[in-house]
Amino acid sequence: VTRIALWISYDGTHYAGWQRQHNALAVQQAVETALFKLTGAAIAVTGASRTDAGVHAAGQVAHFDITGPIPPERYAVALNGLLLPDIRIRASAQVPDAFHSRFDSCGKTYHYQYWNAPQGHALYTRTAWHIHRPLTLQTMRDSLPPLLGEHDFAAFLAMGGTPPHTTVRTITDLTLTQQEDLITLSVSGNAFLYNMVRIMAGTLASIGTGKLPPDAFERMLRPGSRLDGGPTAPPHGLTLAEVRYAPALVFE
Amino acid sequence: VTRIALWISYDGTHYAGWQRQHNALAVQQAVETALFKLTGAAIAVTGASRTDAGVHAAGQVAHFDITGPIPPERYAVALNGLLLPDIRIRASAQVPDAFHSRFDSCGKTYHYQYWNAPQGHALYTRTAWHIHRPLTLQTMRDSLPPLLGEHDFAAFLAMGGTPPHTTVRTITDLTLTQQEDLITLSVSGNAFLYNMVRIMAGTLASIGTGKLPPDAFERMLRPGSRLDGGPTAPPHGLTLAEVRYAPALVFE
Repeated sequence: VTRIALWISYDGTHYAGWQRQHNALAVQQAVETALFKLTGAAIAVTGASRTDAGVHAAGQVAHFDITGPIPPERYAVALNGLLLPDIRIRASAQVPDAFHSRFDSCGKTYHYQYWNAPQGHALYTRTAWHIHRPLTLQTMRDSLPPLLGEHDFAAFLAMGGTPPHTTVRTITDLTLTQQEDLITLSVSGNAFLYNMVRIMAGTLASIGTGKLPPDAFERMLRPGSRLDGGPTAPPHGLTLAEVRYAPALVFE
Repeated sequence: VTRIALWISYDGTHYAGWQRQHNALAVQQAVETALFKLTGAAIAVTGASRTDAGVHAAGQVAHFDITGPIPPERYAVALNGLLLPDIRIRASAQVPDAFHSRFDSCGKTYHYQYWNAPQGHALYTRTAWHIHRPLTLQTMRDSLPPLLGEHDFAAFLAMGGTPPHTTVRTITDLTLTQQEDLITLSVSGNAFLYNMVRIMAGTLASIGTGKLPPDAFERMLRPGSRLDGGPTAPPHGLTLAEVRYAPALVFE
């Protein structure tokens, strides 16, 4: 048995997220179906991040176990021939038998894109949240530093689900960049709570429009409650950019 | 009668280019149909650039004449309500009666995107040309300077069509940037021949893979012939980024 890691990009527009669902097509299922067509075997694929419905990925990582004659680096091209163009395996490689895409990850980076203009842009409709009201970039930037480091992010947890063992997480990097009307939040951390980045992105937008005060993040971290934050930003603005491992996972 | 200018973005994937066609839907026709639904009048819309089938736009400019009570800046939102999401009017404004989107343009900028990796990327499938073989960025950059300035670009003209009055054009700016596996050529000029940017992009790719010598552009400008160049790059990598006017067209 060989353990294979996949480096995966997808346009999440037409998928019910990463994780297999009963009533809708998930990316995991699409990849497993392609693996079944390729090998004739039902093989479970485990992803590093359970991205929500509509969320995209530039660098999801997943792993599976397989026997057979296909060289590890050939799974990428073989699976791409069986998948629709909105899922592209960027590369495949053999990894140690004990490698686990989720448990071994030491960090992830997500990007959240805002399209900030009165009217939309056809080339960002699928991948950026359209915010009509002007966002004040400097106020948004100034609000971010309190989030850096280790905090209890309980106020950034979607309400209603099963609470995790701990809500302490570490944010290692935060940047907000602007290219004309496209604003991109980049968030790196060791791990993330369910909907944490989208709650962060939604709160940041409310800070940018003035609906929430510039210290809204500080209030949420006191710790405050989910109600101190802004809305959960829509999924289509979010992209899983990178999953990190130590030692680094090398695909070439 | 009021002359209105539109600032238009489109994802060209599902369109037969800008210009109205007999057997396929063009962006011009989609906009004219939306205008007809809005006003009940058949109104011709003239665009600055006749982008090919599959080519995208971030900043196409078009104009039309209209009478009626709608404030000029409201056409953007009104038309967006009648168009599919893959065409977004970014803004509308009244312009002088003599303004002509094509004849008054003093320059345009096009972007050509290459996705350079063995496997594709789901989020660039629609907007970048996937080149599997490694491109040598420095060789590509070094090949560009001869294109700058005024030259006879006859060798950059698609074969078979009606030749224009003159094939002399001026390139004012050329940059090649790389962000991980995404390489972007930005070309600015006073005007462009039919397929000129795509022939430039295709030749540049051949220089990057070593299929053509680093001085291929110099040979084409001697002047050489179209046969000295590389292939015409596929349309989906091309985006009309900007149309310039002097004095500048102001949409806000």
